[in-house]
Amino acid sequence: MATQTKPVLYGYFRSSCSWRVRIAFALKGVEYDQVPVNLIKDGGQQLTEQYKTRNPMQQVPAVEVDGVTLSQSLAVIQYIDETRPGPRLLPADPKKRAQVRMISDLIASGIQPLQVSNYDRQVGVISFPKHIANFKFISEPFSLESILKQTSGKYCVGDEISMADICLVPQVYNAERFKVDVGQYPTIKRLNQTLLEIEAFKVSHPSCQPDTPAELRT
Amino acid sequence: MATQTKPVLYGYFRSSCSWRVRIAFALKGVEYDQVPVNLIKDGGQQLTEQYKTRNPMQQVPAVEVDGVTLSQSLAVIQYIDETRPGPRLLPADPKKRAQVRMISDLIASGIQPLQVSNYDRQVGVISFPKHIANFKFISEPFSLESILKQTSGKYCVGDEISMADICLVPQVYNAERFKVDVGQYPTIKRLNQTLLEIEAFKVSHPSCQPDTPAELRT
Repeated sequence: MATQTKPVLYGYFRSSCSWRVRIAFALKGVEYDQVPVNLIKDGGQQLTEQYKTRNPMQQVPAVEVDGVTLSQSLAVIQYIDETRPGPRLLPADPKKRAQVRMISDLIASGIQPLQVSNYDRQVGVISFPKHIANFKFISEPFSLESILKQTSGKYCVGDEISMADICLVPQVYNAERFKVDVGQYPTIKRLNQTLLEIEAFKVSHPSCQPDTPAELRT
Repeated sequence: MATQTKPVLYGYFRSSCSWRVRIAFALKGVEYDQVPVNLIKDGGQQLTEQYKTRNPMQQVPAVEVDGVTLSQSLAVIQYIDETRPGPRLLPADPKKRAQVRMISDLIASGIQPLQVSNYDRQVGVISFPKHIANFKFISEPFSLESILKQTSGKYCVGDEISMADICLVPQVYNAERFKVDVGQYPTIKRLNQTLLEIEAFKVSHPSCQPDTPAELRT
């Protein structure tokens, strides 16, 4: 095992991908430092040359850990899971592990509204219609609900918390910000309610991060 | 270990995500059956009720294996890697494994042109400008090239073939279909050329699948 260091998370309170990583740290009981990267201020602090040196993808989250910088939240979460003690975030059974990854990828590979607005800014030449921000939540919850009906127990896959749950809650939070009625999806709604009662999901919530603006704190 | 069955791949010759799975099977030496799902014909065969029963996400690929149906190519590839003998598709070292997943997710979580046209059809209400199909290739190769400069040896991460290579080649193929000049990205170009010489990438190529139309065979 390489020398383990206290991870540093470059994130944004409201980024769903940053929240995923915060939940994973909290579930594993890993202490970490946060460096806020404001996606709105100064035209997007993730686009600065300084940040680009750290993460060429110019996205949050990025995590400095054990001498490397990692981005892409699912890669970070699985790295933390594989190198730190504490409850496992992927099940031991390969089939269940595959289901966890399938659900996580389904959520992660969709269009994230914040990323869209970010790309828009970067690319310049492309103008996205505003309604594309809602796109993800129009097309995918139906299929996600169908999958979760088959895989879920108390949590997304069986009765153990996993990376799939880590992905679900921030996605529902985003959907609700965009006024999607999650009540249409009873499995998603039930799982989300159960998960929000858990301490790791509470302490990592966008409403109580170091960079959460005072008016959004609850 | 559960009883292992011969996997059945529901895919499409030109789907980059289907190709990823075909490469993985070929690298691992796993025999499998293919059932073509034509994404164009009949308004998209993946949208039929029959296919929806199999894969609620109505996307290819889907793989029936060991009594379960899995979708999302990276979940499928990692399942095959974890349950089948043969060369490993993710490195043993956790940091390198994280880099492989980071690169794979960067490629996989972008906008896939074929998926976009699929969503378009499903959702109906949203009309994507045609140039969005090119979007992925405008914004992301720069960051992918920067990452690969740091991580690559002979292959995407060091000198062992991995899931990152499996993702790279179909993406370059797509980019070239959309007339992107890959020569701008020397690392991507070099890796792609090296990988295309490997038998597993050749036998799985879109130009020689059971459902490849005669006029596209080479």
